[in-house]
Amino acid sequence: MRPRLTEARAPLTQELTVLDEFGQQRQITIPAERALTVFVDNRELVTLMTLGAAPELLVLGYLRNQRLVESVDDIDSITVDWDVDAAAVKTRAGIERFDEKTAKRVVTTGCGQGTVFGDMMSELDSLRLPPADEPSARLSQQRLYGLLNAMRLQESTYKSSGSVHGCALFRQDELLMFVEDVGRHNAIDTIAGWMWLQGMEGGDKIFYTTGRLTSEMVIKSAQMGVPIIVSRSGITQMGHELARKLGLCLFGRATNRHFICYCGFERFDAQPEPVDAMPRKPSDQRMG
Amino acid sequence: MRPRLTEARAPLTQELTVLDEFGQQRQITIPAERALTVFVDNRELVTLMTLGAAPELLVLGYLRNQRLVESVDDIDSITVDWDVDAAAVKTRAGIERFDEKTAKRVVTTGCGQGTVFGDMMSELDSLRLPPADEPSARLSQQRLYGLLNAMRLQESTYKSSGSVHGCALFRQDELLMFVEDVGRHNAIDTIAGWMWLQGMEGGDKIFYTTGRLTSEMVIKSAQMGVPIIVSRSGITQMGHELARKLGLCLFGRATNRHFICYCGFERFDAQPEPVDAMPRKPSDQRMG
Repeated sequence: MRPRLTEARAPLTQELTVLDEFGQQRQITIPAERALTVFVDNRELVTLMTLGAAPELLVLGYLRNQRLVESVDDIDSITVDWDVDAAAVKTRAGIERFDEKTAKRVVTTGCGQGTVFGDMMSELDSLRLPPADEPSARLSQQRLYGLLNAMRLQESTYKSSGSVHGCALFRQDELLMFVEDVGRHNAIDTIAGWMWLQGMEGGDKIFYTTGRLTSEMVIKSAQMGVPIIVSRSGITQMGHELARKLGLCLFGRATNRHFICYCGFERFDAQPEPVDAMPRKPSDQRMG
Repeated sequence: MRPRLTEARAPLTQELTVLDEFGQQRQITIPAERALTVFVDNRELVTLMTLGAAPELLVLGYLRNQRLVESVDDIDSITVDWDVDAAAVKTRAGIERFDEKTAKRVVTTGCGQGTVFGDMMSELDSLRLPPADEPSARLSQQRLYGLLNAMRLQESTYKSSGSVHGCALFRQDELLMFVEDVGRHNAIDTIAGWMWLQGMEGGDKIFYTTGRLTSEMVIKSAQMGVPIIVSRSGITQMGHELARKLGLCLFGRATNRHFICYCGFERFDAQPEPVDAMPRKPSDQRMG
């Protein structure tokens, strides 16, 4: 039985009067940001700062990615109430070892989340991604360009107001789900929640993120069974190490027809651009 | 008596072989990233993911910004050993209410850190910044340009390998300290540690950050008494609200001779550019 979810939406942007370099006041739009305190069976778990686009899916994905709940069916309901900035999670039978599971905290590069990181690391061996010769778990250069083009055309809060991170789920170059949040881990958690609710497998999917390819991003993708991640930004050392260990394929600095494949070359069907067709970028220097 | 600190440095970058859009393998440099587990009097506190440029100052600033330690003199020593990825903090007389202080966690937009956020909010009223008519707590447009120029000339890991956040401390347009880390909150914490060690006041200082102006960034700046923050990126709603409440002056989207002043106009001496001298940017859309 699927959990019952509210659909608590709130305005995603806010108007602001600012002063620019010409000494002129003007109106701009900035993303909204809200504190959402999550209670599980009446016990306070965490406060998430969020844009508020899909708070119930965010909470669902957070519970999954923190591995506090094993099956989506263990959750009876998630009720978000913006009047009190709270999400009330009701489980069907409680959470075993709640204190133990929430005790350890790690501040990771890509927005802490008090991740139960130590445990994650020790369970990495149990993660299984589809083999690299499985056609649906590979990506060609042409499909990669198609994916990047779909992202370019996507309407977004980012385009209207900046300062948010986006995350999308693809099947090859077909866009399945797109979400934005003020924190990029919220965005990937929201997609995790959506997949979980649908009972959707990750083996033939691809993640797109505007954020850096950090260890947490790689772990979350692997936990959801998604073997390929495409990022507009760069990579960190731990992200790279983990992805290699787990057999993920990572693309970064990916916009238009530019990209770097950092690892997992065996999942990539290159269709190289002619070398003289495009100016080489001087280095790998843009910010993640 | 000042704490004794090791000077544990480690390589800040790593070489990587990647595949580009031309189907060619090439060498790039990426930032290093290490897990540093902090023990306080032999009790595990937190694991920070860091570039490792100044781990002792990072730990010092973390303890300060989490308000776990009241005075720098309460700390006897910080010993970082990269062989075991650990920082051992020895206090002179232990930390009172350690469990209570570390119990509450909040995942904020700008990299969680399990911040004792609830408490912070309730103590905001006690933060005092210098008045806006104090000349050293103001900034002119010309000095702002000088500051941005100093940042442009600064050598950095970012320039060589991307994917890190930078943070700097200025007195007007004089650069006092610059630090980079894989997480931007590490960078500001490291500067906090450095200021604390020097016994340096913040009232006549200015923060520069490459990251977004989030609530945490504003709170940390205010805690250190720094009334002005300049960012290359944008702003979040909570960052804006808090800065207004606290009387901070925030500049964002700041590069070359472009910027937006989001709030605290009263600390800013505008020397407007002629309106026809420069093309207006179409909107406030770049990513933080």
